[in-house]
Amino acid sequence: MLINVPETVVADALRGMAAAHPELTVDVENRVVVRRDAPVAGKTALVSGGGSGHEPLHAGFVGPGMLSAACAGEVFTSPVPDQMVRAAVAVDSGAGVLFVVKNYTGDVLNFEMAAELADEEGVRVAQVLVNDDVAVTDSLFTAGRRGTGATLFVEKIAGAAAEEGAPLDRVTEIARQVNESSRSFGVALSSVTTPAKGSPTFDLPAGELELGVGIHGEPGRERRPMMTSREIADFTVDAVLEDLRPRGPVIALVNGMGATPLLELYGFNAEVQRVLSERGVVVARTLVGNYVTSLDMAGCSVTLCQVDEELVRLWDAPVETPALRWGR
Amino acid sequence: MLINVPETVVADALRGMAAAHPELTVDVENRVVVRRDAPVAGKTALVSGGGSGHEPLHAGFVGPGMLSAACAGEVFTSPVPDQMVRAAVAVDSGAGVLFVVKNYTGDVLNFEMAAELADEEGVRVAQVLVNDDVAVTDSLFTAGRRGTGATLFVEKIAGAAAEEGAPLDRVTEIARQVNESSRSFGVALSSVTTPAKGSPTFDLPAGELELGVGIHGEPGRERRPMMTSREIADFTVDAVLEDLRPRGPVIALVNGMGATPLLELYGFNAEVQRVLSERGVVVARTLVGNYVTSLDMAGCSVTLCQVDEELVRLWDAPVETPALRWGR
Repeated sequence: MLINVPETVVADALRGMAAAHPELTVDVENRVVVRRDAPVAGKTALVSGGGSGHEPLHAGFVGPGMLSAACAGEVFTSPVPDQMVRAAVAVDSGAGVLFVVKNYTGDVLNFEMAAELADEEGVRVAQVLVNDDVAVTDSLFTAGRRGTGATLFVEKIAGAAAEEGAPLDRVTEIARQVNESSRSFGVALSSVTTPAKGSPTFDLPAGELELGVGIHGEPGRERRPMMTSREIADFTVDAVLEDLRPRGPVIALVNGMGATPLLELYGFNAEVQRVLSERGVVVARTLVGNYVTSLDMAGCSVTLCQVDEELVRLWDAPVETPALRWGR
Repeated sequence: MLINVPETVVADALRGMAAAHPELTVDVENRVVVRRDAPVAGKTALVSGGGSGHEPLHAGFVGPGMLSAACAGEVFTSPVPDQMVRAAVAVDSGAGVLFVVKNYTGDVLNFEMAAELADEEGVRVAQVLVNDDVAVTDSLFTAGRRGTGATLFVEKIAGAAAEEGAPLDRVTEIARQVNESSRSFGVALSSVTTPAKGSPTFDLPAGELELGVGIHGEPGRERRPMMTSREIADFTVDAVLEDLRPRGPVIALVNGMGATPLLELYGFNAEVQRVLSERGVVVARTLVGNYVTSLDMAGCSVTLCQVDEELVRLWDAPVETPALRWGR
């Protein structure tokens, strides 16, 4: 592991992020990353955060067109309400703040408490819960479905609406629409090792994979002997489509868990596109890369979001963050 | 491994890339990736390529402001001259083509032959050899120093000059200046597994690292028991500075070998910046991420490029490729 000691991993990363990204304001002590020009007058703000270890989620998505701020918790551990309140106060222009919360018990409780505290500070807060992972319900750390890849869709699309001047109610409505229109399914080809533990958090023998794994290594639906990229794409996309049943085009996120080479991920995307085409699903946009990761886990996930013209327009809108950048 | 069979890994990846990037023209059969608007009238073209397994290098750097085309070889194997000639013919507007060649014996021979063949087709070709890795000379596959991270600097900075209208001679001159001003050093924390072999290409026991590793897993300078991020940064940066001795500011690439989590890479960047500051080196720009990789290898490399104002301006110039995008 490329670290000093487990205790400083998150602070070290934030210092390194500050050095690489002068366009962000990084509060290393309080572990809050804010776009430098916040608060932006009249703009609805978006704040997210969660346990570290899923980079570039969330701090890598801070910037014009996406998040106003992100709070970093310890590895695989929710940030605390104080961080979220600091972030909300730092970015609120008076137009209010949307909290984007992945559905894990700790995150939900902490963001809930932060919303109450922020309200006392005079910040109007709305929340959207992201719960797109169809693999299992009531998993380790979660009541209901887990929040995974759809977080990127919610942050990008609602972030674009906020950047265009949409008020808090409308930004929240769009964020909920995106979450409700999105489903994910993930597969682990290896376990994941956290700095604190220093050994794999779960036991996955070589030559086996875990279908439906969570982004903290939570158990999925079943274990099988290694499958081909083609077979994994069939299983994964069908698991998503069984729950989503899109009536229109989708945006596809073909996501790496961290240690899967981009060469393999692009090859997997070819198979994902093949299955989607065979199932009659039209793909409006595709994003391939390591975006919602689980440290050094090998594996992949697929997230589909059913979109209308407005959502595609917001997806295409300019974004300027460390991990996602496009548009003019 | 997330693959079908080793024989189709590169073609599968190119199909997946085509689906995700409609802004590129992907010739899957001939394994050539070209920016869609090529040839651009009056513009000097840049063509690179090399063995696959280092993604996003090179195809991920095709687009406005960087490469005109890239040729993909088999994993860790040079593309063949026919691919390079096809690429050159496809992108040449009459203003000529610069081949960006990493210093490995196969690549050098094949690009040399391609230059002769392209000349016969009426395409004026210049070449720049990238040989920035200070770890060893006359390594496996290489006479002289290996070409690694500086390839990104050469492609970005010379690519920007070409986009602005610089003629072939000037683009070549800038590319050589960037290579001569750049040095790299890499460290492996794990071995690398190619699809064809299916098992690690070299043996690196857990708890040890290889200082000076190549991007194909070639041996470095020495093996040591695991070091901290701080110690690795000291060793790596000092190895680079011993050879580079910059008299002005540098651009720093803090690069992941593929399987190292972004969380760790940003933490490593904090240590790299600390050493540079202690050594009195001013950092003009920093890029952190997995850009010049070695499949599933865990580890990192540091590349420094001494820059003047003109090179910084060209670095900052707009770029629109799958893996690098910025500017307006």
